Amino acid sequence: MYRTHTNGELRLNNAGQQVTLAGWVQTIRKFGAITFVDLRDRYGITQLLFGEELNKQLEENPLGREFVLQASGTVNERTNKNANIATGDIEIIVSSFTILNKSAVPPFTIQDDTDGGDDLRMKYRYLDLRRNAVKKNLELRYAVGRAARNYLHNNGFMDIETPFLIKSTPEGARDFVVPSRMNPGQFYALPQSPQTFKQLLMVSGYDRYYQIVKCFRDEDLRADRQPEFTQIDCEMAFVEQEDILAMFEGMVKQIFKDVKDIDYTATIERMTWEEAMWTYGNDKPDIRFGMQLCNLKFPAHTFPTKESIASLINGADFQVFDSAETVIAIAVPGCAEYTRKQTDEITEWVKRPQIGMKGLVFIKVNADGTYKSSVDKFYDESRLKAIADAAGAKAGDLVLVLAGAEERTRKATSELRLEMGKRLGLRKEDEFRLLWVLDFPLFEYDEEGNRWVARHHPFTSPKPSDISTMIGNNPVIENAAEYLKHPYANIKANAYDMVLNGNEIGGGSIRIYQRELQEKMFAALGMDAEEQQHKFGFLLGAFEYGAPPHGGIAFGFDRLCSILGGSESIRDFIAFPKNNAGRDVMLDAPAAIDDKQFTELQIKLDLQ
Amino acid sequence: MYRTHTNGELRLNNAGQQVTLAGWVQTIRKFGAITFVDLRDRYGITQLLFGEELNKQLEENPLGREFVLQASGTVNERTNKNANIATGDIEIIVSSFTILNKSAVPPFTIQDDTDGGDDLRMKYRYLDLRRNAVKKNLELRYAVGRAARNYLHNNGFMDIETPFLIKSTPEGARDFVVPSRMNPGQFYALPQSPQTFKQLLMVSGYDRYYQIVKCFRDEDLRADRQPEFTQIDCEMAFVEQEDILAMFEGMVKQIFKDVKDIDYTATIERMTWEEAMWTYGNDKPDIRFGMQLCNLKFPAHTFPTKESIASLINGADFQVFDSAETVIAIAVPGCAEYTRKQTDEITEWVKRPQIGMKGLVFIKVNADGTYKSSVDKFYDESRLKAIADAAGAKAGDLVLVLAGAEERTRKATSELRLEMGKRLGLRKEDEFRLLWVLDFPLFEYDEEGNRWVARHHPFTSPKPSDISTMIGNNPVIENAAEYLKHPYANIKANAYDMVLNGNEIGGGSIRIYQRELQEKMFAALGMDAEEQQHKFGFLLGAFEYGAPPHGGIAFGFDRLCSILGGSESIRDFIAFPKNNAGRDVMLDAPAAIDDKQFTELQIKLDLQ
Repeated sequence: MYRTHTNGELRLNNAGQQVTLAGWVQTIRKFGAITFVDLRDRYGITQLLFGEELNKQLEENPLGREFVLQASGTVNERTNKNANIATGDIEIIVSSFTILNKSAVPPFTIQDDTDGGDDLRMKYRYLDLRRNAVKKNLELRYAVGRAARNYLHNNGFMDIETPFLIKSTPEGARDFVVPSRMNPGQFYALPQSPQTFKQLLMVSGYDRYYQIVKCFRDEDLRADRQPEFTQIDCEMAFVEQEDILAMFEGMVKQIFKDVKDIDYTATIERMTWEEAMWTYGNDKPDIRFGMQLCNLKFPAHTFPTKESIASLINGADFQVFDSAETVIAIAVPGCAEYTRKQTDEITEWVKRPQIGMKGLVFIKVNADGTYKSSVDKFYDESRLKAIADAAGAKAGDLVLVLAGAEERTRKATSELRLEMGKRLGLRKEDEFRLLWVLDFPLFEYDEEGNRWVARHHPFTSPKPSDISTMIGNNPVIENAAEYLKHPYANIKANAYDMVLNGNEIGGGSIRIYQRELQEKMFAALGMDAEEQQHKFGFLLGAFEYGAPPHGGIAFGFDRLCSILGGSESIRDFIAFPKNNAGRDVMLDAPAAIDDKQFTELQIKLDLQ
Repeated sequence: MYRTHTNGELRLNNAGQQVTLAGWVQTIRKFGAITFVDLRDRYGITQLLFGEELNKQLEENPLGREFVLQASGTVNERTNKNANIATGDIEIIVSSFTILNKSAVPPFTIQDDTDGGDDLRMKYRYLDLRRNAVKKNLELRYAVGRAARNYLHNNGFMDIETPFLIKSTPEGARDFVVPSRMNPGQFYALPQSPQTFKQLLMVSGYDRYYQIVKCFRDEDLRADRQPEFTQIDCEMAFVEQEDILAMFEGMVKQIFKDVKDIDYTATIERMTWEEAMWTYGNDKPDIRFGMQLCNLKFPAHTFPTKESIASLINGADFQVFDSAETVIAIAVPGCAEYTRKQTDEITEWVKRPQIGMKGLVFIKVNADGTYKSSVDKFYDESRLKAIADAAGAKAGDLVLVLAGAEERTRKATSELRLEMGKRLGLRKEDEFRLLWVLDFPLFEYDEEGNRWVARHHPFTSPKPSDISTMIGNNPVIENAAEYLKHPYANIKANAYDMVLNGNEIGGGSIRIYQRELQEKMFAALGMDAEEQQHKFGFLLGAFEYGAPPHGGIAFGFDRLCSILGGSESIRDFIAFPKNNAGRDVMLDAPAAIDDKQFTELQIKLDLQ
């Protein structure tokens, strides 16, 4: 060992001890003949004091930032204590030292507020990882993983590894593929998830499985997506939805306790998918704040159980609302005093291409009970009041109204709500609100192919009450314009998402476990019997030999860590992430390969 | 929940309780109007008793092997107890039941001694996994992983995930590569190990890292190799070899304790590589038994520190020994009475192509003190005695002597020793003997290229005393015939292997952490500066910014589990293994991919 203690370990009661420390030179400060060095390692910082007698040696072996230093000496009580660090009561009077390795001047400072830009830090990720801010993230990640493992172990789950070199069965996202040298012309695929394997393990009787496992998706990378990502992947047999919800509420609460020391004792709220879409405009609502959507107008079929209140806006000859498919309002608390400049800025915000609206209507509910609106000339004060009341506005609030095509308007209102919540400080970083979203539709309509696609994945079971609808009807959509009238449009899935502060952190479902139903599902997605057999013959086969009822869930580990760590970027919680072009700029990968490799793999490039 | 209890849970003190169980029908036995069903799940087997009143229901819903059954009833004390199973004191008097899923007749029996052949079991692996024998292996695997994680956690190690999509830097084994759609013409590689990443983490200050992680090697698969395998991968900074040996002795002992309830209190023996090769003929000796090699003759240079005793065999005009490069004897205990048929059989055994010897000489040390040998006419009794004594033979032993080319003869004697040890029951399955093998050569000679290759990998440090030899000499081998005289031939590595019962279960080294030495190493392996920069520029760069002394070890997780489980096959300890052609016969992977995938990846086949 190059050290007797770490740099986070020594305290006043160690005073007088002979110790040897090792670490990196964080700072060097000279005071006359005396040199102070802050020595850093993973555990902390300890101050070293080099006295006059070491000056000659220091001159011959000058220290620099990030040098690796080993120093021996005596622990001494400081006269000038530093309450900010755990070792601040002591310092080491150095008697001898060795420079274990030198360092060039780092391209950026190794500090929380570094001067390094993103690209530079990624190129020198091994230096970036030295920064305390990044280290804390990886420590948090490790703690989350350990908490999950302990909880799952204590509940009888077994970690079982599933293979990485599997078969390509592209459904939805693209597979990464791996040419097989030993089987020329054939390819493995990297798993998008261990979905079918964990289901096979249920068929095999391993009734509580988990794995913290890398998954791969070759998607065009939007911000904050990684081609390789990690899931906490779980599956249980002989369970119903309620059992899974209870089990994994427990897991997440345990993670809160172990990692953040938060007792999340509150009941985790539940909301149907329809309610979430209606009330918040999206399927992963941030329920830390209200500002719920007031759906003034919406097309028939979209929310079949909901009642229209379009009478509040109809008949005023306001063309924007009259011609719009959808009109939605939100009441922003306490913003009635916004200036023209401020409302203009919000209008510009919703007109940005990412939001894509044409404009914004506002109604100020003034403190004195009067109303002021951008549509004063179409709506008198009583009508403005009726709209504001419907939106739940109180005196002092600002009602914002968006109008346009259904999906775009709903999404835009949802985004606007989140933006206003953020601006008003309603999305508190240290407040955590969990939510289950339930009863998703089983299918989504694919306009391009005029067919159904699985909203979750093809292994999700319909609600028991919808099984006969699914088996008994032909999935073909005769009339594209009326797809919402097809019986499949209303089939609900036995699926659930766990949402934390407006982010989906986990999702799962009760699975199909009957061959007939699974075949019907594949057929509904446009797979004929041959394709079913080629891609999923092993699973259909397994369902013939006593498959138990089962279901599961997968948590996005990177995302869960980033939210618990109070960051919006999952990259901050991955030791060696890739950039938005899927590149590792430190390794400079991907890269060209040798001719010999092409020859052995019997493939060649076919660049367009 | 479909059950109130598992099938391994109920005991006599549950008698009288109403319970619901679920599981698979293991056996059905009819006795008159009563039907007994053994219901199986992961936790055990419980006997169900279907009385006369359920006969009609059973006739309408006949049960079959492997059906998934849910049954409710009352726990009842058995009259006819079964001491072989944990639930053997009770049975369930069934009041109602539901068939949750049917099963076709399985292609083989779900029993420890199944009638299914290897191919069939692999195709239906999801059924094979139901067998208790396989389940126990996966449970052991989980227990080993958990013991390792707990030990490492308690010793301050952090689990940090390293990337799977990296850069191809083929050194030794071939990489699996992954075409990048977003970077046409470029490829990722799957990691053969996280070696360089864990070293970067040391540079970053995470001084105790571990990961239980999949690795990939595209090698021609010999028996019991898998293209994807799992490592317990560890690295420490600010350590010397002794620190690593101590830490991981602790880990393996903890695994013995947690998994096998074995207190491995003995000191773990140590042996240099040279001693292992000299005494056992290979670098991973099984030290559960003696039968050490008696090296009668060997070429100069092979073991420079060892003394020849060729005088024992020289000058007898026995052409076989005189012309042989190497002559090695072993004394097989208690086998002097072997018949001619038996010694002939052993002779045939060493003549098999896998062993490749031309013949075998034997000397029987009879109980009465006389000697009988197949080379009686060349060696008189006093010379036979001298040879037998040198081999450590006692009265009643059988001395076996092999002669031929050095490497082949050494390997053959080593194999013969292991074979005889096995036949004599000296390799006891329940005895575990750990051993460190130390001081490996740093380089191996590559005859084809007349150059050095790294014996371990290019990041292994030479012994500190050999660093100057390495830096100070030109690695080029001028005279191929005399490569053993090159100074590099004697450089020893700071490397260590952990051996268990004749299997390498882990290996590691103290790493190079100085840029100059790393460059010299790369150069010694034939890499010019440009290639070094292209392949390992990130690592050389990292060594410029304060790399600490560090080292580590990786354990072969699959192998470790198989030895602890008393099996010779790692496939038995992998949930979904591949066959010797690298195929998953259950999935039928690898497989052809779609034209669309080729187009998107901008590659095409180039079949020879």
